[in-house]
Formats: sequence, C-alpha cells, structure tokens
Amino acid sequence: YKSQHYKAHSVVLNGTSSQSKLQNGGAERPGRFTFSSEPNVEDIRRMQAQFTDERDWNQFHQPRNLLLAMVGEVGEVAELFQWRGDVAEGLPGWTESEREHLAHELSDVLIYLVELAEKCHVDLPQAVLRKMALNRLKYPASKVHGSAKKYTEYKD
Amino acid sequence: YKSQHYKAHSVVLNGTSSQSKLQNGGAERPGRFTFSSEPNVEDIRRMQAQFTDERDWNQFHQPRNLLLAMVGEVGEVAELFQWRGDVAEGLPGWTESEREHLAHELSDVLIYLVELAEKCHVDLPQAVLRKMALNRLKYPASKVHGSAKKYTEYKD
Amino acid sequence: YKSQHYKAHSVVLNGTSSQSKLQNGGAERPGRFTFSSEPNVEDIRRMQAQFTDERDWNQFHQPRNLLLAMVGEVGEVAELFQWRGDVAEGLPGWTESEREHLAHELSDVLIYLVELAEKCHVDLPQAVLRKMALNRLKYPASKVHGSAKKYTEYKD
Amino acid sequence: YKSQHYKAHSVVLNGTSSQSKLQNGGAERPGRFTFSSEPNVEDIRRMQAQFTDERDWNQFHQPRNLLLAMVGEVGEVAELFQWRGDVAEGLPGWTESEREHLAHELSDVLIYLVELAEKCHVDLPQAVLRKMALNRLKYPASKVHGSAKKYTEYKD
Repeated sequence: YKSQHYKAHSVVLNGTSSQSKLQNGGAERPGRFTFSSEPNVEDIRRMQAQFTDERDWNQFHQPRNLLLAMVGEVGEVAELFQWRGDVAEGLPGWTESEREHLAHELSDVLIYLVELAEKCHVDLPQAVLRKMALNRLKYPASKVHGSAKKYTEYKD
Repeated sequence: YKSQHYKAHSVVLNGTSSQSKLQNGGAERPGRFTFSSEPNVEDIRRMQAQFTDERDWNQFHQPRNLLLAMVGEVGEVAELFQWRGDVAEGLPGWTESEREHLAHELSDVLIYLVELAEKCHVDLPQAVLRKMALNRLKYPASKVHGSAKKYTEYKD
Repeated sequence: YKSQHYKAHSVVLNGTSSQSKLQNGGAERPGRFTFSSEPNVEDIRRMQAQFTDERDWNQFHQPRNLLLAMVGEVGEVAELFQWRGDVAEGLPGWTESEREHLAHELSDVLIYLVELAEKCHVDLPQAVLRKMALNRLKYPASKVHGSAKKYTEYKD
Repeated sequence: YKSQHYKAHSVVLNGTSSQSKLQNGGAERPGRFTFSSEPNVEDIRRMQAQFTDERDWNQFHQPRNLLLAMVGEVGEVAELFQWRGDVAEGLPGWTESEREHLAHELSDVLIYLVELAEKCHVDLPQAVLRKMALNRLKYPASKVHGSAKKYTEYKD
C-alpha cells in the first residue's frame, strides 16, 4: 500500500526548503511558496478510502453526510481567522501552534472534499482542469488585467 | 508550462474506464471509483498561481478573501444537494448536466482551498499526510470498527 | 434594561405548552410548534450590543469578522447533523443533551447574524418582510403547488 | 393573518430615522443603529410556515434540507464580502444596490434558520436568551474587558 512510502516532512509549513525548489525546477519566481508533489489527489482518495473501509464507516459516508462534515471543517477554518482582521500572506505573527492548527483544518477540508467527490463519482483532478479552462475563457487576462473595478465586474 | 500537457478526459465523470483501472494496478476492489493521477495538488497550485498572476489579482487574494470565496463555493455545492433528501453513492437519478454542475462547484472549492493554503504557506499535500496519521491514532480501527454508536462516541 | 424582564422558560424545547397555544390564538393547525413571542429581533440586537460594549469588543466586531464567526457557528450546527442521514421533524431519537446542544448552536448563528446585520446597518426584521414579499412574487402558490419537479424548476 | 398588517418601510437600510429613535426610547447611545421591533421571530416563523404550507413544500423541508439551504445562503452572503478586504461598520462605499442585495441574503439566512429551528422544535427566541446568559457567565466583563490578547484567550 503506497501510503507506507510517504514520510511526513519534519517541517510541514515551509516554503523555502531546497527540496521544494528542486522539485519545481526553478520555473517559479524566486522564493515563491510551493507544495510537495506527493501525495497527489488520487493518493489522498485511496488512503482515505482505506481508512474508511478499515473502520466499516462507508455506511455513514453518504454524499450529504460528507458535505455536512466538510461544512463543519470549513467552519473550523473560519474560527481560526474570525477575530483577526485582515491577514497578510504567510501569516506574519501567527505562532507555530496556530499554523499547525490551520494545517490540520485545511487538511480536513481537503480530505472530506476528496471523499465527497469520490462518492459522487466526480474525477476531481480532471474536473479541476476543465473548470480552470472555463475560468480562462470567462476571465480573459487581456480584458480583466488590473483594477479592482474590472475584477468586481467580471466576477459576477 | 506543465498545464499545457494535460488534456481533460472526454468523460470527467467516470469510474469504470479501463485507463483508471490500469492506473491503479488492481489494488482496489473491482469497479471502485478512482481519480486520475494528474494534475496533482502542486500542479493545481501552480496553474492557479499563474492564472492569478496573469490577471494581476494577487492584490485581491489575501487569505481571508480566499477563505470567504471558498465559503461561497461550498454554499454552491450545498445548493445542489439541498432539496434532495438522502443521496446515494454515484448520484443515481442525477442528469449529466447536474453532475457536470457539481463537478464545477467541487472544483471551485478545491481551487480556492489550494490557493488559500498557498497564501498561508501550508504545504497542503504534506499536511494531509500528517493529519491522516493523527486520525489513525485517534480512531484505531480495532476500537471503532462497526456500529454507529461507537462511531458517534469516537467522533469528537 | 429590558433583558432583565425576560425569564428563560424552564423547557426551551417545547412545542405543545398551553402557553404557546394561547399566544398564537389558535390560528395555527393544532399542535403545531410555535416560538415564544419574546425576545424579538431588536431585543436580541440590543442585548448583544450591550454584551459587546461591556467587554469593549466592538474593536473586533467588524462585519467580516462577524461573518466568519457566523460561518463557524453554522459549521457547528452542521457537525450535529453530519453523520445522521435523514432527520425527521422534531428530531425523534435525539437525547435532551443533543437537543440542548443544537439549541445553543442555532442561537449562536442568530446572535452573530443579528450583530452582522447591525454593523451593516441592515434593518433585519424589515428586510425579512421585503424578502418574503419578493419570494411570494417569485413562487406564486398557484403555479408551484405540488410536485418536487415543479419545486426544483421554480427554485433558482 | 397578522402578516397583512405589516408594511415594509420605504427605507429598509436606515439607522438614523426619527422613528427608530422613538421606538427605542432613547436608551441607546445617540445615533446607534437599531432594528424595527416588528416582525418578531415568531411572526417570521408563522409567515414562513404559511408560505411553505400554501406551496405544499413541507415535504421538502426536512431539517437537513433546511440546513443545507441555510449553508447556501451563508455562502451568498460570503460572496458579497469576499473581494473587499476589511469592511467598516455601516459599509461606507457600498452602493444602494449592493446594500439591498446584502439585506436580501441576510434575510434568507434568517428565514431558513427560523424554519430549521421550527422543524427541530427549538424555541429559538428563548434559546437565545439562555445562550446569552451562558455567554455572560463564560466571559465575565470584569475579566475580559480590553485587549485583543485577553479576548483571544477567553474565546474558546
């Protein structure tokens, strides 16, 4: 089972590791935060499916149950941001513990989103490609580049 | 730029293609729905980052703005399920158009989740691995296997 | 301060008290669950405003902060329903403790909704009247009465 | 039926009308935004119950359906705030049309919240009183008055 081969990095919250830079081949602007290339979305689906199977929990994991679970996790993310006013990129001033908490809650959203898509038989990685292609058609860079006004107008 | 090499499959909503079976090497139970292996989460991050850069939209994509955008997309998923009562795996009785609509809204949730994690400098794929490891410790299969009662007790 | 005059009923979760029937003058179908007439929405606004003032918390209660707090509370409601499958009116099978928990979470949603409307200068009770009038125009009873099909067509 | 007696004010979004001041008897600080005293929460419940009855829609309005509908409406509120950065009290710079849109979406959240509480047999106005009493015990004004640090520590 593939998940055995993964090792969680010692530092999850890390945008500047040499490993990340190598993985991304320098195509990004210097210092831009990047993700690890593994696990991919299908890996996450498979690991979560095994987790659910082992516990005999598929009986509870109907689509609407998973949707409500995802709503619950989004609520937990919101609670981490609710009293802070505007928050800048990279979360300056957040403690390591707060960052770790956020990493857990964002992960929970992704885990339930992936399982919801699975139960709905939506091939999520491919669906994202299609949606991104639609977004490119809907908001052509040449037309929407720039001002907030244009942004608001285009984002219906 | 890697995204040019992806081609959206002609059928996004598809759990039984021979390609999927081959990709997963028969390790799953027969006919189980699987995702495509690409794009991975980092690919999605990079494509969305390029999309945002091209439009000069980073000025609008602070963490809390992206969080509210994700809440909006979760709301759109909820609207697709709200009047249906219980929904079974595979969405029997949904039209192709309804499935496509759902695929779009689930994709929007993922796109904003990925961009939110990026702006928070959370390495989402690795964070998921860590959270899954914690879930395995929290809900040992031997203890929680089986009844809804046990499930409810162990959850939170 | 008016809130001193309110007394919480000994039983909050109660659809059949003779008091409720009297309050509603028999206009409803027999046994239909009704609310108490107090506190009204303005009372709730005033009590919460005093609560916030006493703690010097207005500095944290900008509209977007309150919106995220409301999202968090909606998430907590979702967590109470997430693993249950379909739930019938009156919540048969729920314990008193679960009902009380739900009453608390629904209250939190209302409290933040009211404070959000206040900070946005939206007269919420009057706004509801106007929205209900619009809904009556949008979904005429004569046209939408009956089938789920018609319901789905007319909704959105 | 009582709802016939209500008239929507010509200006819903209005914090400074002499009428509002009179309704509230001068107990608030001068110019503080207040709500109208009607309709109360029970009025809203009754009007929405009649609306649902007339359309034979109770068959669709199970608790979880109403919860998902409320999630959808919260998502629509989020969409109105998502690209704005921090928003100050009173929504300076918002157009009348944007304010009206917000009033509609906040109303939709309240309408579904009220109907959800009704179907769950939670006496929402009384439940709010009890929750507010608990909040007063949990966050004593003398202890939490003042700094953001104390606020964060005391919240959850």
